[in-house]
Amino acid sequence: MASDRPLRMGMVGGGPGAFIGDVHRKASRMDGVIVTVAGAFSRSAEQSRATGKQLMLDPARVYPSHQEMIEKEQKLPPGERIDIVAVTTPNNSHFPIAKLALESGFHVMCEKPMTFTSQEARDLVAVVKKTGKVFGLMHNYTGYPMVKLARDMVRGGDIGEIRKIVVQYPQGWLSTPLEATGQVQASWRVDPGQSGVAGAIGDIGTHCENLAEYITGLKITQVCADITTFVAGRRLDDDGNCLLHFNNGARGILHVSQIAVGEENALAIRIYGTKLSLEWHQEHPNALHVKDQNGPEKIYRRGNGYVAEKSAAAARATRLPSGHPEAFLEAFANVYCNFADTVRAVQAGVKPDPLALDFPNVDDGLRGMLFIETVIASGKSSDKWTNMPV
Amino acid sequence: MASDRPLRMGMVGGGPGAFIGDVHRKASRMDGVIVTVAGAFSRSAEQSRATGKQLMLDPARVYPSHQEMIEKEQKLPPGERIDIVAVTTPNNSHFPIAKLALESGFHVMCEKPMTFTSQEARDLVAVVKKTGKVFGLMHNYTGYPMVKLARDMVRGGDIGEIRKIVVQYPQGWLSTPLEATGQVQASWRVDPGQSGVAGAIGDIGTHCENLAEYITGLKITQVCADITTFVAGRRLDDDGNCLLHFNNGARGILHVSQIAVGEENALAIRIYGTKLSLEWHQEHPNALHVKDQNGPEKIYRRGNGYVAEKSAAAARATRLPSGHPEAFLEAFANVYCNFADTVRAVQAGVKPDPLALDFPNVDDGLRGMLFIETVIASGKSSDKWTNMPV
Amino acid sequence: MASDRPLRMGMVGGGPGAFIGDVHRKASRMDGVIVTVAGAFSRSAEQSRATGKQLMLDPARVYPSHQEMIEKEQKLPPGERIDIVAVTTPNNSHFPIAKLALESGFHVMCEKPMTFTSQEARDLVAVVKKTGKVFGLMHNYTGYPMVKLARDMVRGGDIGEIRKIVVQYPQGWLSTPLEATGQVQASWRVDPGQSGVAGAIGDIGTHCENLAEYITGLKITQVCADITTFVAGRRLDDDGNCLLHFNNGARGILHVSQIAVGEENALAIRIYGTKLSLEWHQEHPNALHVKDQNGPEKIYRRGNGYVAEKSAAAARATRLPSGHPEAFLEAFANVYCNFADTVRAVQAGVKPDPLALDFPNVDDGLRGMLFIETVIASGKSSDKWTNMPV
Amino acid sequence: MASDRPLRMGMVGGGPGAFIGDVHRKASRMDGVIVTVAGAFSRSAEQSRATGKQLMLDPARVYPSHQEMIEKEQKLPPGERIDIVAVTTPNNSHFPIAKLALESGFHVMCEKPMTFTSQEARDLVAVVKKTGKVFGLMHNYTGYPMVKLARDMVRGGDIGEIRKIVVQYPQGWLSTPLEATGQVQASWRVDPGQSGVAGAIGDIGTHCENLAEYITGLKITQVCADITTFVAGRRLDDDGNCLLHFNNGARGILHVSQIAVGEENALAIRIYGTKLSLEWHQEHPNALHVKDQNGPEKIYRRGNGYVAEKSAAAARATRLPSGHPEAFLEAFANVYCNFADTVRAVQAGVKPDPLALDFPNVDDGLRGMLFIETVIASGKSSDKWTNMPV
Repeated sequence: MASDRPLRMGMVGGGPGAFIGDVHRKASRMDGVIVTVAGAFSRSAEQSRATGKQLMLDPARVYPSHQEMIEKEQKLPPGERIDIVAVTTPNNSHFPIAKLALESGFHVMCEKPMTFTSQEARDLVAVVKKTGKVFGLMHNYTGYPMVKLARDMVRGGDIGEIRKIVVQYPQGWLSTPLEATGQVQASWRVDPGQSGVAGAIGDIGTHCENLAEYITGLKITQVCADITTFVAGRRLDDDGNCLLHFNNGARGILHVSQIAVGEENALAIRIYGTKLSLEWHQEHPNALHVKDQNGPEKIYRRGNGYVAEKSAAAARATRLPSGHPEAFLEAFANVYCNFADTVRAVQAGVKPDPLALDFPNVDDGLRGMLFIETVIASGKSSDKWTNMPV
Repeated sequence: MASDRPLRMGMVGGGPGAFIGDVHRKASRMDGVIVTVAGAFSRSAEQSRATGKQLMLDPARVYPSHQEMIEKEQKLPPGERIDIVAVTTPNNSHFPIAKLALESGFHVMCEKPMTFTSQEARDLVAVVKKTGKVFGLMHNYTGYPMVKLARDMVRGGDIGEIRKIVVQYPQGWLSTPLEATGQVQASWRVDPGQSGVAGAIGDIGTHCENLAEYITGLKITQVCADITTFVAGRRLDDDGNCLLHFNNGARGILHVSQIAVGEENALAIRIYGTKLSLEWHQEHPNALHVKDQNGPEKIYRRGNGYVAEKSAAAARATRLPSGHPEAFLEAFANVYCNFADTVRAVQAGVKPDPLALDFPNVDDGLRGMLFIETVIASGKSSDKWTNMPV
Repeated sequence: MASDRPLRMGMVGGGPGAFIGDVHRKASRMDGVIVTVAGAFSRSAEQSRATGKQLMLDPARVYPSHQEMIEKEQKLPPGERIDIVAVTTPNNSHFPIAKLALESGFHVMCEKPMTFTSQEARDLVAVVKKTGKVFGLMHNYTGYPMVKLARDMVRGGDIGEIRKIVVQYPQGWLSTPLEATGQVQASWRVDPGQSGVAGAIGDIGTHCENLAEYITGLKITQVCADITTFVAGRRLDDDGNCLLHFNNGARGILHVSQIAVGEENALAIRIYGTKLSLEWHQEHPNALHVKDQNGPEKIYRRGNGYVAEKSAAAARATRLPSGHPEAFLEAFANVYCNFADTVRAVQAGVKPDPLALDFPNVDDGLRGMLFIETVIASGKSSDKWTNMPV
Repeated sequence: MASDRPLRMGMVGGGPGAFIGDVHRKASRMDGVIVTVAGAFSRSAEQSRATGKQLMLDPARVYPSHQEMIEKEQKLPPGERIDIVAVTTPNNSHFPIAKLALESGFHVMCEKPMTFTSQEARDLVAVVKKTGKVFGLMHNYTGYPMVKLARDMVRGGDIGEIRKIVVQYPQGWLSTPLEATGQVQASWRVDPGQSGVAGAIGDIGTHCENLAEYITGLKITQVCADITTFVAGRRLDDDGNCLLHFNNGARGILHVSQIAVGEENALAIRIYGTKLSLEWHQEHPNALHVKDQNGPEKIYRRGNGYVAEKSAAAARATRLPSGHPEAFLEAFANVYCNFADTVRAVQAGVKPDPLALDFPNVDDGLRGMLFIETVIASGKSSDKWTNMPV
């Protein structure tokens, strides 16, 4: 998608102590197609200014609130004002910010989980539809090239019919009451007022759900969940184990934890088909393991011609030759690249490249919210199976 | 345990096409403390003789039935007759063979699952108690030194309180209707008349249950199971996924499969404690991974002094220096070694070395049968949780 | 190092078909402290313009030659002109470009190997000294946090006295006469007129040399090399194996290949000390393996507090929490970050943070050139040992 | 090879404190085709008796010297006397024992390195030829099925022409002066009077040489060695690094160490061909990695049908199904199995199965001795290359 300038982004959130806002900035900047030029980085005007200064932004475009950012940027000339609003705040404010931005004419890239409730998610689907603006949801793990290869192998029929999916996301960082120390990341994640009805299930369970559905194209239909809060005094779940049913009859296991001592960010998925099986580990993202009952295991590695032959999406999401590892930031940036290409197409009034549409969107966000609420409901139910709404 | 002769073993099962009988013979022979001198290897007298010949046994001690073996061996002089009966037949005949052997004065080593039903298992507990004979159950995976190290680290308090256990045993060998080809191993395992109420859950689920309870010392109290038969026409489960509750409040996930294409024998367990976590993989059995939230992961490797310091049982179960890998047969042999030392002690009328008592016994076998029946019941229930009887 | 603006960079090289120029751009841009605003991307003015357009640069600052870029940028006002010249051309032009840039008042970031000959390297040392400008050499692998941890563990005495170093860099991409297809990367690398006296030894052998000396602080004193060209018609080495002596008496092995079929970019180093040993693999860069004769192997992983405690340099070179993998581009960017901080300090007339000085410099570049020439000389010699000049 | 009785073995060496003698006993016993019935386990008659008692042997067949064992066993009736003499003493006595045994009509299995000098090795070649007895050399690593698969893939042309071989055997157990503690294994290995001219090169360097030549069928023609003794006071090398030339023009690197802190028994080999490359690690022996420049890496795993299709030798050397790991003892036993089958054939006066002849023999032993002497000579030479005699 040719262009004569990078897209301009204004960020909400991402102030001092934030983690994901800085990741959005680095990832969106990496390829030179997006620049952060404005921001309402904190509910504290002072902290917002401090972040703006650190980012070497024009102080005039560092705002004390997202409302002011949206209002003032709207008034700037088209050649100057932001194109995109990035929403990187805690979950409870995603919806109002995204809604206002979309309705004010901006495209939106939003952190996951998309909203605070599934009702907000349904409303946001409508807003996106009504405004026609581009909405991206940062399920960054689908940005990994080998995840795209996995999806394209499934789509291409390589693995046959899917019978079983095992997806996990164990972490150990909340194995103690870290929130009691005032640590910023921990504090809002364990606060129902900011996170919503779920803790681990919302924060990382949604990544599992999204990864499984993205790769397989299947939908979870039923959930049986065992939800636990291990750390005394914590109000949201820090561990969750689920049995899953998928719409093709496949069985699944999904387990997440924030109290799995010594685990870092061990998201992994195994997909068992009738012909072949796939295995991918986020901490070793450059490899996709393909297992065969009748031949040796194969390790597909990013950056090779034989990957490109199977997956144009994987090739497109690759910057470096094989053996030069790519990782988290590059996957994150891949979501931004496709999002940006789609924004440019919409701005130019042309149809986006189908490959550019490969980024998580508002419908994926709704799935995530339905998943959260279904799992939490199942966790409280004595019925074995709880249906997931469509 | 000094002795002037190897123990003599008579085997039931293990004829042509059998897998595990040959493993019993190799493993029991490896250390020179047990020799197979007799057998009723097949219900076919001819096949039994063929196996006896291949094993270079005295033809007079190759019998057409276990009853005849037990009867005739009983009549041999003490210096000649067998000490031990090894039961390596399909599940449905374990109980009558073991019972007869015990009641006829022989010690017994029996394949798992121990019996056909939990009622038989309870009966066998009584028989063992009544006869005072030594009964070993071949849950061979507990014979691995690093499994013993894991148990001793748990016992020693190294990992703190256990919060979560994830145990898996995926295989792919029954992903197609292999039984239709007449393959011996497949055929009896999928036959309810020989295997019992469960397929994968009985064959490999019990290994998961036993491994988890062995290492942690915890007991499963509740099960929520999703049990599936994927291969058309098969009458027993070939896939099973369970949520578990343990008696200390720990949560668990147990999943097994025989249709996980490309998986070989991927038994693995992860145990998450409040201080440390443990991870062990059967296919890479010489390493125990110890994870820490506050320090680097440590890889304990078999055969090192630092292992022996933490676990006398692991040291005792080790034949070779570090870096000289040991594997399946050696673990299997370790069960036999402790069993044999206990038999010798009983023969000598002395108290066995406590370390020698570290082999699976009739109580473990009962746990396994209760587990099988509970999981299968849960699989049929619409209640979330099914209690496991004590 | 606070600043009110990003540094501005002009690039020489990095036009269509180039690999490393694009890596320089992405890496330098990632953290927002450097922006590429100018370039002489190709000896073809047309191709240079094409690259400039793709990068959305001001066409006025896209030049047909590095001379013109340097001349015209010098005339721009200080608030506008470039601060840094990045040299990403083939080896034969590094020296004249770098020399002109430095003497024209620009700081320089230069690709490795630094020059065409060791004489040029000695001359460049003098130029840097004379001009007082900051000179960075892109030995990017030293930018990896776990490499910095390794260095700091050696420095801190953790591993004792070093006895042996094994360093390798096998690749397979030139196992066939790829240059005959016109592939840009292959073509200049196998051309003595552009690469210099060495092929694989210059391109990747220097990374091994630099990595070993960086981590250990030792100097190679003697080399015994076996240098081979396997692909018919190729004029430079595509495989090289060396025995090394270090200045403390340590022994070493260094082997590189471009014909190691199936190897991607398998740079790895093992350092054996009297107390502990270290192992690091570039393709799995987030882990440093620490081996102990008396305790379990430890795996230090990037982003953890226990790493930061041992190495401020590793912590400084880390953007993401543990388990969120970082990779090649981030390591590359770390070299730029320290380089940029040093440039800013020099611009501000203050002493750079000692941690900022942790980037490869002109002296490292001279070591590399001496290494190349010594190895090639040794390869032609029938003497066992060839001394490496100081 | 059908038979009506196991072969009977008498062992020289393997008394208290010995390592490898016990390995010979366990390995030869595992498959039931060989039984140890006699021995001269120690130069101390008392210690020999103690070992005999521990092994539950007939005291009449536990001898105070190998001469007496050979003499007295010769006089026993054919149906009783030993078939095989196993030589598991330190290197200096291999030759006289093996020679006497062969000339006395016994088949011999001998530990490596085969003799004390290459002259003894040449003499032994003649003795074997003259007596017509079967001579096996315990280069156990060639007994691993995946090593046999590698050999058969090379033979079958799968990997093309071999260009480069990298073989290593780092250990750490002698990184301190362990011999000063009286440790039995260390003491004789560092004693030139028992070990010969080489330490690490003789003990483990020969395994590298043998493995490389076994798999590839190539011969080392020239060596350039850097040999070091790191531990003060030690009289033999504890570290050695070699460049190699092979008879087809391939290049090689061979490095061994006993001072590589934290390494256990890390024998590994990589073989780079023009089509594919192979990689095998002794500590993970069930996998053979096959690397491809144009497709994904493949991991061949022991026990699968696709392995058997490529290598009858690998299939024959396999006892357990895939995923049930086999390891060091099984590989060791495989050498005994083929040796035993060959002995039986010779005893029966029939031609051995060609697959049975797949065990290291006296010619391999001579290669090993020539290798040792060449490497040590090279280590002392200032010439780059030292030719290896044929």
